[in-house]
Amino acid sequence: MDFKKAELVCTGSELLSGKINSYVPLFSGRLGELGFRIAREHSVGDDPPAIAGMIKCALKNADLVLTCGGLGPTFDDVTRQAAAYALGRRLRYSKYAEQILKADYGLKELPPNLRNQCLIIVGAKMVKNADGTAFGQIITSGGKMLILLPGPQNEWAPMFGAFISDAVKEFFKVREGTIKTLRLKMAGLWEVQAETLLRPVMRKFKEADYTILAGPYTAEFGFTVKGKNARETSKKSSAIEKACRNILKDRIYGVGGETLEEVVGGRLLAKSATVSTAESCTGGALGSAITDVPGSSDYFMGGVIAYSNRAKEIILGVSGKTILKHGAVSGECAAEMAEGAKRLFKTDYAVAVTGIAGPGGGTKEKPVGLVHFAVAGPYGKTFRFIRNFRRARAFIKRCAVNAALDALRKVI
Amino acid sequence: MDFKKAELVCTGSELLSGKINSYVPLFSGRLGELGFRIAREHSVGDDPPAIAGMIKCALKNADLVLTCGGLGPTFDDVTRQAAAYALGRRLRYSKYAEQILKADYGLKELPPNLRNQCLIIVGAKMVKNADGTAFGQIITSGGKMLILLPGPQNEWAPMFGAFISDAVKEFFKVREGTIKTLRLKMAGLWEVQAETLLRPVMRKFKEADYTILAGPYTAEFGFTVKGKNARETSKKSSAIEKACRNILKDRIYGVGGETLEEVVGGRLLAKSATVSTAESCTGGALGSAITDVPGSSDYFMGGVIAYSNRAKEIILGVSGKTILKHGAVSGECAAEMAEGAKRLFKTDYAVAVTGIAGPGGGTKEKPVGLVHFAVAGPYGKTFRFIRNFRRARAFIKRCAVNAALDALRKVI
Repeated sequence: MDFKKAELVCTGSELLSGKINSYVPLFSGRLGELGFRIAREHSVGDDPPAIAGMIKCALKNADLVLTCGGLGPTFDDVTRQAAAYALGRRLRYSKYAEQILKADYGLKELPPNLRNQCLIIVGAKMVKNADGTAFGQIITSGGKMLILLPGPQNEWAPMFGAFISDAVKEFFKVREGTIKTLRLKMAGLWEVQAETLLRPVMRKFKEADYTILAGPYTAEFGFTVKGKNARETSKKSSAIEKACRNILKDRIYGVGGETLEEVVGGRLLAKSATVSTAESCTGGALGSAITDVPGSSDYFMGGVIAYSNRAKEIILGVSGKTILKHGAVSGECAAEMAEGAKRLFKTDYAVAVTGIAGPGGGTKEKPVGLVHFAVAGPYGKTFRFIRNFRRARAFIKRCAVNAALDALRKVI
Repeated sequence: MDFKKAELVCTGSELLSGKINSYVPLFSGRLGELGFRIAREHSVGDDPPAIAGMIKCALKNADLVLTCGGLGPTFDDVTRQAAAYALGRRLRYSKYAEQILKADYGLKELPPNLRNQCLIIVGAKMVKNADGTAFGQIITSGGKMLILLPGPQNEWAPMFGAFISDAVKEFFKVREGTIKTLRLKMAGLWEVQAETLLRPVMRKFKEADYTILAGPYTAEFGFTVKGKNARETSKKSSAIEKACRNILKDRIYGVGGETLEEVVGGRLLAKSATVSTAESCTGGALGSAITDVPGSSDYFMGGVIAYSNRAKEIILGVSGKTILKHGAVSGECAAEMAEGAKRLFKTDYAVAVTGIAGPGGGTKEKPVGLVHFAVAGPYGKTFRFIRNFRRARAFIKRCAVNAALDALRKVI
């Protein structure tokens, strides 16, 4: 697809040591709506030549380059100088900027560090910052646009909404409704399986843009389409969504930001039903996932983490005979655990997980990663199934949690 | 301090749309120990020319370049090809890699996507991946080193510890003992408190390099020193460590990669003691943390997720009167929950958590973020305390888990 290319240059030495750079998702959504895709993101320390080099490199590759950070009044704020150098332009002292800062802060004279804030690249358009002293700057040259923004989100986000977005639309002649992105969320399969299943869709609709994201026994399939107007864009998007749904059927649990535990919660609420858990190898992670959803106390009554066999017997009422005959990691034990939790918490549904999270404890018959599940519901026989996740301990736990939630989702 | 330059090229279109890139802090610590500092980080989409261009650019600027991601078996995994192109080398099919994958996955023939995983850059050293199908690759050329790593941390982290670190040391002739990094891990305080407390240390020992990493009611303080030889380095490091310990005292729970739950597990094992949990607002997250430690079944007997008041009463034996008089979120209730779990699971210790995770359910007296804790032990009175985490739901849960583990650590 023909997105225009944007690059993001984030500056600040803290981004290269302890701090996580969380700018990309924030800019990506805003730029996507303008028909831009972030082609590359760069984090660079507070080092003028390194920043200048990066801006040059980005301007060569992309139509739109945004820098974020390094416009403050302290010694390590060097992005302004670096950008001027990269463009081969000079900085000029803006009397207008000085007036604005004086008025905003009620000052007769600006102290030296605030005078720095009045340096504007020759030919740049100034963008006012309602929440700080750093002006944004927009420079266009040779069909490309460079935008300098301050680092804090509470400063640049309002500037983006109020000015930047319109400046980009105007300069690049962007029309509304011409781009749409959809993310389909799937459970009960791996990324590779999702890809295999969806390959025909990607082959058929060649003009769309696709991404597949792997999760623990889940996957996310995203696609973006472009059209002449909102109607055409919607039509294209719906056609692809329909084709995906025909193939994936109930493996799709949601769209966009929805989580599996939110979907399960929504279904329980819709039925005014309650649920409880009985966990062995997940050790509480299933309950924790369910209770990540605000308001989950309306349908989640609680659970038992029955890590020892004694706990399975005494609290959940699993029969000693079952454990002796089939072992604690068995469909029989999972079923009795689920039924025990349902009884104990007086819930409509109960889900149980018992398996071997490893790294120790595996045998040839019951290898590490083997997990038994059971769901007890309001009617009929308790439903059981088995999976083998053959991975590392933490990942096996997360896969088992998702498999349990997905089973619950399908049963409710 | 004179660090060598490293650059990080993270690949994956998801890093340029919805996903936050959290690689930098993970690599920064590991590379710091080897005498490298990350000069720039780049995130690039799954686009071979863009990745190749970035690798070239990074190799020009830095001594060591690491790529992360894009080695999987699906269509959008293109880092291998891009790296080969950047280096002007070819990919060869490795029979040895094929044998390893066949043995690992019990396959007679590899499916096409797994055959892709056997493509190795000519002249590259293969690095085995115990937790996935993607091999790492190490290529050296002209005094520089390029390392290709898979994206998931659970895959590359073990590879880094087992092979990569040594390969870097050998190639760059990092002399043993001339660099030392120590990471002190703290619980029961916030990053800003840690920074305030440690400022005198940073002022006194100016030649060291410092980082502070924030966690959920935990923090990590890292420092790196350089010396002519192991003795000098150790002496410098010990002096700083001693100064930190004098200030932080028992807030320090560990050093390096140790987790709080591992430290708690170690103490329980050393005393041949057992533990159980009673959770309300953490919803199972505490049990899950405890059981993240392999072998935790030796000391963790289980827990009750008592999300409803009924569960607190019926299963844990909290008196209805206590709930009526003090509420379910109270020290009294927490204490009875801990005592109930201790009785039920017949353990030496039991820890209970009850609070308001929000976003709803808060009042003026009991605001969102308020959490009561209790630890029942083999002797004496059940110990109680209270914290207020005033943050978002998921973060409150994680803070509460850490506070509970930390209390347990101090009591055992």
